[in-house]
Amino acid sequence: MNPSERLERQIEFIAECDRLKSVLRQTTLIHDTRRENSAEHSWTLALMAMTLAEHANEPIDVSRTVRMLILHDVVEVYAGDVFVYDVARRANQAEVERAAADKLFGSLPEPTATEFRALWDEFEAKATPEARFAGAMDRLAPLIVNSRAESTSWKKHGILESQALERNAPIARGSTRLWEYAKGLIAKGVERGLLKR
Amino acid sequence: MNPSERLERQIEFIAECDRLKSVLRQTTLIHDTRRENSAEHSWTLALMAMTLAEHANEPIDVSRTVRMLILHDVVEVYAGDVFVYDVARRANQAEVERAAADKLFGSLPEPTATEFRALWDEFEAKATPEARFAGAMDRLAPLIVNSRAESTSWKKHGILESQALERNAPIARGSTRLWEYAKGLIAKGVERGLLKR
Repeated sequence: MNPSERLERQIEFIAECDRLKSVLRQTTLIHDTRRENSAEHSWTLALMAMTLAEHANEPIDVSRTVRMLILHDVVEVYAGDVFVYDVARRANQAEVERAAADKLFGSLPEPTATEFRALWDEFEAKATPEARFAGAMDRLAPLIVNSRAESTSWKKHGILESQALERNAPIARGSTRLWEYAKGLIAKGVERGLLKR
Repeated sequence: MNPSERLERQIEFIAECDRLKSVLRQTTLIHDTRRENSAEHSWTLALMAMTLAEHANEPIDVSRTVRMLILHDVVEVYAGDVFVYDVARRANQAEVERAAADKLFGSLPEPTATEFRALWDEFEAKATPEARFAGAMDRLAPLIVNSRAESTSWKKHGILESQALERNAPIARGSTRLWEYAKGLIAKGVERGLLKR
């Protein structure tokens, strides 16, 4: 493949990934009631990893964590976003997302196709300190939103305190300090009547 | 400062940066007519740098380029976005953005405050290969949108071909190959009647 063919494929990939800006999540913005999309969410997670890296349980390569977070949701351009508390749909979602990853990353020239797929697989497997910290960012972000925003996905969907504690416990695998902080946000959510007992 | 005070400040910074999702740019999405915000735009640029790094004129540290792009627009939460062709407002904007950077990055604990400010200054100065390539991403992204989207900021604002060529020429400082590609997109914009002669 010559350089200009490579470039055409790369630009097609970038244009395809632009669809992530139209994939809406259940959480809103902090300062506005509109729903957040998965592209701007990914930006927040990258910024969070850069800002909060000192709280990781183990030393992490911040740059790889950031690149993982930039890519972690791109398969949603084909697979869509599934609410973290929608356990039934999440079971099937893993397979749908793998097929989407094959299609999306497979469209890129090498070595980028293999490199991006490896970063995406690493995030999914949570077997490295970087992936565990990246996963902690992904769980912590909506807690920060729900602790500050006007309308919360918790209240809208009648989420229980026990569900919030269970679904977000993996934060501890990336950072016990951030998990202590997160539990404080959940407790405040209960006090404010946003989470049911 | 103890770890929990540090964490409170870091979370405040992240929450403040969430306002970037409400700063609207002149460009739209590729697949939708709504205007793009600066947070999702920053995500696209990070993804572009990861995807297109092989086309840089000089070898670059992709990770530093990505971190630079995550941060490059955050000062807009105080300073706002200024259209690339609005030359009059851009002259004054540099000063406004520096004051915003003092306030925003200065709110962070060290060493993060200094580190983030240095990345932001590096992007602004365009004196390193990483900053020049990051700058090329920032110019190339709206050209890709305008070459594919239904409604273009070019047509809406009556932009001339000569203006598009002049404003985007700095792409060549980061990548002569991407500048050749960009000139092709501008030529097609003229053919389609989106840019005036």
